[in-house]
Amino acid sequence: MDTRDALVRCGMEILTEKSFASTGIEDILKCLNVPKGSFYHYFDSKEAFGCAVIDSYAAYFARKLDRLLLDPSCSPLQRVANFIADACQGMERHHFQRGCLIGNLGQEMNSLPEAFRVKLEAAFLDWQDRLAACLRLARSAGELTEAADCEQLSVYFWIAWEGAVLRAKLIRDSSPLLIFARGYFSGLPYAPGHSGLIVPLS
Amino acid sequence: MDTRDALVRCGMEILTEKSFASTGIEDILKCLNVPKGSFYHYFDSKEAFGCAVIDSYAAYFARKLDRLLLDPSCSPLQRVANFIADACQGMERHHFQRGCLIGNLGQEMNSLPEAFRVKLEAAFLDWQDRLAACLRLARSAGELTEAADCEQLSVYFWIAWEGAVLRAKLIRDSSPLLIFARGYFSGLPYAPGHSGLIVPLS
Repeated sequence: MDTRDALVRCGMEILTEKSFASTGIEDILKCLNVPKGSFYHYFDSKEAFGCAVIDSYAAYFARKLDRLLLDPSCSPLQRVANFIADACQGMERHHFQRGCLIGNLGQEMNSLPEAFRVKLEAAFLDWQDRLAACLRLARSAGELTEAADCEQLSVYFWIAWEGAVLRAKLIRDSSPLLIFARGYFSGLPYAPGHSGLIVPLS
Repeated sequence: MDTRDALVRCGMEILTEKSFASTGIEDILKCLNVPKGSFYHYFDSKEAFGCAVIDSYAAYFARKLDRLLLDPSCSPLQRVANFIADACQGMERHHFQRGCLIGNLGQEMNSLPEAFRVKLEAAFLDWQDRLAACLRLARSAGELTEAADCEQLSVYFWIAWEGAVLRAKLIRDSSPLLIFARGYFSGLPYAPGHSGLIVPLS
C-alpha cells in the first residue's frame, strides 16, 4: 500500500469516529508516523484530503453493499436484513466508536467546505440506487407487493438508517439498529401470502 | 432577559447550526457583544456552558412537543403529523441551516465531554415518553390497532427522525422530512376501519 492510500485509509478510520473540525492533519500523520511534507506531497490541503477520504469511503461502502445486496444465496429482503446484521457486527467490533463517515460529515456540513456537500449527497444517492435495485428484485420475487414504490422505500431506508447509526453511537449499543430494523421491516408492503416474518436480528 | 439566559440562548442557536468543536467561546461572545469575563462569571468552562445549552434546548423542545402533542383540537395521529409540519416550516425558515441540537451533538459525541452523553440520551428518552403517550392516545381513540406497541413506535420515530433532519440539512430541502413522514405513517399499525390516510405534508 503506498503512502497516499495509507493516509486516506487512516483518514477514513478517524472520520468515522470523530468530526472533521476536531481532526488535525497531525492526527493523520501520527497514526502513520510520516512527516508533514509527505501529506502535502499528496494533498494540497485538508479539504483536498477530505474529498479523497469521502470518495474512498463511498467506494468502500458501495463494494460492501454489492457484496451483501447481490448475494445470490438468499432472498432479496434477506440481503437487506443481512446488511443490517453486518453493520451491527461492525459497530460492535469497534465498540460503537465508529459510525457512518457520510452521516458524520453530513451532520457537520455547515462547518465544512462546500465541495463536500455534493460528494456526500452523491454517496447517499448511490446507496439508494443499489438498495432500490435490491428491493425491485424483492418485488419481482414476490416478497413485496407489485405496487411497492422501491425507490421511495430505499430513500426512506437510508434516511432512517443514518438516525439509527447516530443513536447507536450515542448510547454505545446496537438496540437502535434493531429497533430501526424492526420498524422498517414491519412497515414494508409485503406481497399477499408473504409472511413478512423476516427479522433481521434477534 | 439576563446575560446568562442570553448566552445560553445564543449557544442554542449556534449549536443547532454547527458543531461544538468548531464553536469557540468567542463566537458566543460576538453575537452578544459581552466581554469574556462575563462568560466565565456564569460558566466555569465551555463544557459547563454546553451542559446548560443542552438542558435549555431539551426543555424548549419538550415545551414545543407538549404544545403540539397535547393539542385537543385534533386527533392524536394528526398531532404527530403537525409536529412534522411544524419542524418542516422551522427548517425552511432558517434555510436548512439549523438542525436538531441533540442530534448534532449526538453525532459529535466521540469528540465531546462524556458528561454530554447522558444529557443527550435523556433528551431523547424524554421526547420518546411524550410521543409514546400521544400514540397511546391514538390507540385508545381507535386510530391505531389495539396491539400497537406505542413505546417501540415512538423509539423508532425519533431514531428515524434524526436521520431525516440530518439529510434535510445536507441537501437544504425538506423532502427528507416528507419521505420520512410518508414512510413512517404508511408503516403504522392502523386500527381496522381506519383509512390510514393521514398525510402529514403534501
